[in-house]
Formats: sequence, structure tokens, C-alpha cells
Amino acid sequence: MAELIEPRVLKGFRDFLPDAELERKRVQGILEDTFERFGFVPIDTPVLEYTEVLLGKGGGETDKQLYRFQDNGGRDVAMRFDLTVPFARFMAAHVQELYLPFKRYHIAKVFRGENTQRGRFREFTQCDFDIVGVDSPAADFEILLLMRESFHALGIDRLRIHLSHRGIFNRALQRLGIQEKAVEVLRTVDKIKKIGEEAVREQLVELAGKGEAEEILQFGKPEPDFLSTLNKITELAGGPAEDTERLKQIYQWMVDLGIEGSYMLDPSITRGLDYYTGIVYETFLLDLPGIGSVCSGGRYNDLASLYTKERLPGVGSSIGLDRLLAALEELGKKPERTGVTEIFVFCLEEPLFGDYLSLAQTLRKAGFATEVFPEQRKLSNQFSFAEKKKIPLGVFLGSEEKSRGVVSLRDLRTRVTYENLTPASLIMKARELLGKHSLKA
Amino acid sequence: MAELIEPRVLKGFRDFLPDAELERKRVQGILEDTFERFGFVPIDTPVLEYTEVLLGKGGGETDKQLYRFQDNGGRDVAMRFDLTVPFARFMAAHVQELYLPFKRYHIAKVFRGENTQRGRFREFTQCDFDIVGVDSPAADFEILLLMRESFHALGIDRLRIHLSHRGIFNRALQRLGIQEKAVEVLRTVDKIKKIGEEAVREQLVELAGKGEAEEILQFGKPEPDFLSTLNKITELAGGPAEDTERLKQIYQWMVDLGIEGSYMLDPSITRGLDYYTGIVYETFLLDLPGIGSVCSGGRYNDLASLYTKERLPGVGSSIGLDRLLAALEELGKKPERTGVTEIFVFCLEEPLFGDYLSLAQTLRKAGFATEVFPEQRKLSNQFSFAEKKKIPLGVFLGSEEKSRGVVSLRDLRTRVTYENLTPASLIMKARELLGKHSLKA
Repeated sequence: MAELIEPRVLKGFRDFLPDAELERKRVQGILEDTFERFGFVPIDTPVLEYTEVLLGKGGGETDKQLYRFQDNGGRDVAMRFDLTVPFARFMAAHVQELYLPFKRYHIAKVFRGENTQRGRFREFTQCDFDIVGVDSPAADFEILLLMRESFHALGIDRLRIHLSHRGIFNRALQRLGIQEKAVEVLRTVDKIKKIGEEAVREQLVELAGKGEAEEILQFGKPEPDFLSTLNKITELAGGPAEDTERLKQIYQWMVDLGIEGSYMLDPSITRGLDYYTGIVYETFLLDLPGIGSVCSGGRYNDLASLYTKERLPGVGSSIGLDRLLAALEELGKKPERTGVTEIFVFCLEEPLFGDYLSLAQTLRKAGFATEVFPEQRKLSNQFSFAEKKKIPLGVFLGSEEKSRGVVSLRDLRTRVTYENLTPASLIMKARELLGKHSLKA
Repeated sequence: MAELIEPRVLKGFRDFLPDAELERKRVQGILEDTFERFGFVPIDTPVLEYTEVLLGKGGGETDKQLYRFQDNGGRDVAMRFDLTVPFARFMAAHVQELYLPFKRYHIAKVFRGENTQRGRFREFTQCDFDIVGVDSPAADFEILLLMRESFHALGIDRLRIHLSHRGIFNRALQRLGIQEKAVEVLRTVDKIKKIGEEAVREQLVELAGKGEAEEILQFGKPEPDFLSTLNKITELAGGPAEDTERLKQIYQWMVDLGIEGSYMLDPSITRGLDYYTGIVYETFLLDLPGIGSVCSGGRYNDLASLYTKERLPGVGSSIGLDRLLAALEELGKKPERTGVTEIFVFCLEEPLFGDYLSLAQTLRKAGFATEVFPEQRKLSNQFSFAEKKKIPLGVFLGSEEKSRGVVSLRDLRTRVTYENLTPASLIMKARELLGKHSLKA
């Protein structure tokens, strides 16, 4: 006999057991419903792409993390490491078949050969939503609103979305005469929440000089409220312009909808990537500040420039589903799950199996998720099975009951049994116990 | 400026545009609901596995088709080519955390470097459902019933599930003294629907001799009804045994439920793989016989023997989602889709955008998927956008109407406009036009 193979998975990869997978499906379903309520539609793209297509943008950093290989036809291919690059390629390929502005969401697995020691996964699910083909404050605002609504739909209202505007920051750097170092400065300031102000100051002094470092740090500090922060950075940027007017407009809409408490103008938010050109934002959970941003993004002025001359400005955001699932569990927002199955038909006598099947079909048609135990085993065994699957109700039918045309129903949670039920009264009783309304077929 | 990269996808891989992706989600949702109504629960496994884990079973044939490479840590890895092998590995790894019988479904992408000339894809979605940990006729029957119910839920009732039993076939071969050639004979008979009886006869004569070939072909021919076919193959197998009794029992349950018309005992069904040991089946659509089986599977007596000594018998079935989607479209069972968005708020005057946003939020809270056009463009442009997105209703609000606290609602399908609606009457009218019931928040 051959030696057994160890049934292991790769480091950074995971199996999802039913409870975890049901919870992932629940959360994903709520997000999809929320996106669709705002008119966003889903797309999908391949897991595998030409490496050339994926590495067009920001090659260096992602290269080491890339799952890249030659396929059997000798093509240089790689697994997608995010959903943004495939979306850019998608828009360039299909813009003629679509309509603009195009609002899409995409929830799918991505792959990065990350260092797993930081608790990161190498296969994880991203959830992106973008509005492409328009550069208006209204589109920026819609994404900010949808971020808030998505978390609200999941039961999370204690959050704060920190936002800023790259254009204003760039103007401030220009005024300091260090605009050619903009990307390094942005990346340095971006680390302030991770490494603290002192460490950032040191790096900025080295990068831009002492006075400049102080002014940049001053720029990054939020004032007590949105408008006073806006006034300060407007001044540091050399006065009002389209960028500051846009933030003012967005803030006004927040006030109009009474949701301004969920947002904060935080000029230290820069998002490291040189990709962003307009507003940028990150989302923090007030009860779990330690986990970092759970939803980030911003405005970019040209999504697909690597693949097409058509200019496609856009604004979008991304949720890391795995981090979100962990957060929901930690916040106690993962609901206690009852079984998928609602009614369990015990197998008391194997010759009656045809009756169990008919009964189960009747119950399914009445709207109950129903399963029959597929062989005659000890009752204790079947009870334990139903308990492990968290099934709330059980039905019993023996030959004596069969002769009288009745069954027994047991509430497996309360251990109360209801005897001598006809099929019709069984359905009524089960509906009552499960708090279900009658379904129209 | 850098040269543009062609936004192409790999041969055999596809983008899913919103209409296709929404349809895939619809069909997948119906299948998931159906599986859960029978008490099946979802799992997921990684896209990437150790090659050793995947190739344990049936290495040769799949090897050429495998996307296999060394990852950055020097591991020999491969992308999953089906959902059965990962499921076997999953069961071996987690059987202690689960309960038996374990009924799972798994809908996910798999990857094969197939010859794309036959219209095959290299990335495609499989949908598997299995009952593991029990070897009973009831479990066999449940899978057969669930296959029928899954297609019924999708609106397909004109189908026939052809089934047979490998044990009976093996006994017949044993009687002919050619059991050591069983696998080759099975694979030859399996081709009868593809290459025809004559070609199969020739190959069988060469393989087993002339008389034997005739007897095998005779075995494979269905009689006019289930029981007479069963009687014939019982005789050719040397008399009744557990296998023939099991088929008789399964047939009786079909009659009990009045569904026997959807099934046919077809002893030419063998399923090529040596993996199966009990019942085997394939599903054909009566109105699309040319596309071949849309749902196939069978019973195996030891799922995870490569990874564990624990014996895990099971029975399961697999639907190729891509073929199913093509079939639904060809059968006219793909519903005409209205837009995801139900109400479109036209942007008539940009300064009123705050009002449009508030109105949209009110409509969303009343249960309507609502979107606002995010900038002021020509009305004809906005109308054309709403039409492309197939949005049924449009709302108009100008400053004159705002001063009176009313809006206009236009049915974009019938081109009828309803003027001077208060917010409350807007919601009532929109519900009426969309045939929606009031939702509780």
C-alpha cells in the first residue's frame, strides 16, 4: 500500500469550513446588496493574466510577491495580486461595450506571496467598488457615502472615515519648493500612524530640511473640526482652488445628509501610491483602532493609461474581506448561527424511508430546509448529528404513527415534543416554532 | 510616452461583463438555495495546492493540463484542476472537526490547460455536491433527487438522468472472465454516445473477443422500461445481489415520489474513471441533446484514501456551470434582465445635487435601488445612460419643483410622466409601477 500523503495546505492559504464559509457568504451578500442599491454592478476577470498586463503598474514592489510562471504554452503568466490592475485592463478592453460613468464592484480572491508572519494571508478576498468615467465631487461623495452605508448594513456604525486630498498636499509641497520629492514625502507622512510623529519628523528633516519638515508635519495635523482643518490646509497650500472647493462641497453634502460625524478631514492621510491624484481616504473602526484601515481608496485621474489612450478618471475604494470578517467577529457582530437545515427527519425504520422522503419533499415545498438521515442508526447518534448541525426541529415517524397518518415534531432546542400532528398541522406548528411566515410557492 | 500594452486576456480565459456576471450570480444563487434546502453546507479550499496533494490521484492524464510551477519559496505547487481532489484532502484534514454524514457543496473556479479548440475554457466554474461518510441507497437517492430539483429550480424539467451501477457491470465482466480488463472495457463502453455502437464494437472485439463484445453491447442496451432493463442486467450479471437490490429500491422511491419519468436505467453509462464503485449517472437535456451531460457523478467507496486511513465512502455529482449557463440561454431560460438600479435621479441642476442625494437616500431606505447621475450633462446623454442600464424609472427635480416640494416621476419604459408628486406619493407610485410590496425597514 502506498504511503499516505499529508493533507496539508500551503502556508498562507486556508480551508473554509462550513461555518466560516456561511459567514463569508452572509457578509459578501450584504455588501453586494448594498452596492446594487447604489446602482453598482458586478464584473469578474481571470485569476491568471499575462505578466506584462499585471506588471505594467508599479512593477518593483509587487514583483517579489507575484505568483509568476511559464504556462504549458510558454507564456509568461501570473496570478492577480489585486483587483485594480485587472479592472484597468478590463476597462481598456471593454469601454466601447459599456456606458460611462461605469460603476462596478468586484469581489474576488487575489494572491500575494507575502510574509505570513505578520498574520497575512497569501490568498485573500478583496472587495472593490469604483466609479469610472467622471471626475466630479458628486462621484467622490457617492463612494464616501457607500463606504459608510456598507459598514452600516453590517451593523457597524462606530467608524470614522479619514479623508484628505492629494492635490492640496501637492500644492503645499510646491510652495515649499520640494514638489520633486512629493512621492517620498507622501510615503513618509503615510507612515505617521504606524511609526509615530518623531520617526516621521526625522525622516522628513533628512528628506526636505528642518523648516520644511515642521511645515509638512503642521500640514498633517487635523484641527478640531472639518472646516478649521480645511481653512488651515487651504492657507498652507497657498489659498483656495478647485481641490479645496471640492472638499468644502463634499462636507456640505455630508451636513445635508446629517452624516458628517462619520468623517474627519485628516491631512496626514496620503495613501503611499503615486497612483492617486484627488481625494484619498482610510476607514478606522472606533472600537478596534488596532487593526488599521478596513476600507481605503481615492481618486485617480487616469485608470487605464497603460492600455489605452482613452482617459478614464475614477474614484474607488477597497475592503479587505478577511480583515473585515475578523473585525466583525471581534466586535460581536457575527450572528449566532442556527443550522442551514431547519427540519431533520429522523430515520426510525429503514422500510419507511420512502415515507421520510415524501415528508421531506412536502416540507421543502412548504419552504423548510429539510434533510432526512440517510440510514438507520442509533437514535442517540442521530440526535447528536442534529445537534452538531444546529438543526432546530426534528420529525419522527414510526409504523404505528404511519398507520394513523400522523407524525411527532420535536423542538430540539427546548426538548418539547408535539405529537399526533397531521401533515397540515405539522407545517403550521413548524412555522410557529421557527417564526416563519407562510410562503407562496 | 511608453508604448501601450494590449489589454488582452489569456486564451481560454474570460472577462465577465455585468450582464453575464449577474446571470452567473443568479444561477449560482438558485443552486446554493436548492442545496441548502436539502441540508448541504458550503466549503471552500485554496486555488493553489501542493502538486503532490493534487496529483496523488490519476496523475498521468491531468499532468499535461496542470498549471504547475515553483513558488518563490521553491515549493512545487499547482492550481486546482477540479474540486474532488481538494475535497478529499479537505475531508482527510478536517474529518475530526466535522460530523458524518457530511453533505457539502462547493462552487468555485478550476483551471485546466485544455485544448481550447473544442470550445473549452481553461478557467471554468464547477459546482459539486456530495454526501460523505455513508454508503446507503438513501444517500444515492438523495443525490439523484437533488440533481432533478436543481434543474427544476432553474426552470428545466425536460431532462433525463441516465443511471447505472458499476458493481453490476463488473459482475457481468467477471462472468465473462474479463474482469481484469474492466477499466479498459468501461472506458470503451463509455464512448458509445460519442463514437457510436459500431466503433465501440470493433474496439471491444479486439479487447475481449467477439462473443464477449456482443454480450457487453447487449448489457449496455436499455430495455423499454427501468424494471425490464434491471431484470436483463441482473441476469447478465449472474443473478440478484446487493447492487441490483439497491437499484430496485431506488426505483421504488422514485415511483413513491412520482418522479420516475425523469430517470432511465441506462447500463451503457459507466463514467470512465476507475474511481467509481457504485451507481453512476449523467444528465441530458431533452431539448439540447447535443451538449452532452450537464450533471454527472456517482458513488465511490473511499474518497480520501491517499491522505488518511479512515474510510470515507460517498456519493456525489458535479455541474459544469459554464455549460449550464450556455444551455439556459439556448433554452430561453435566461430571464430578460431589467437594470439593477430601479430609480434613476436625473441631475438637472448641479447646485441641487444635495437634494438629489437626500432624495436618493430616502428612496433607498424605502427599498429601491437608486442612483444619481454624478454630474450635470445634457439630458439626452442621461436618458441614453439610463436606457443602457435598463433602469425602469426616472425622477426629475428642478428648482421650481423644489420650491413647491414636489418631483416628477417618469416611467422610462412607457414614457409616461407623473408630475407634482410629494415624497410620499413618489414612493407609492414607484411601488405601484414596479409591482413592489412595501418593505419593512
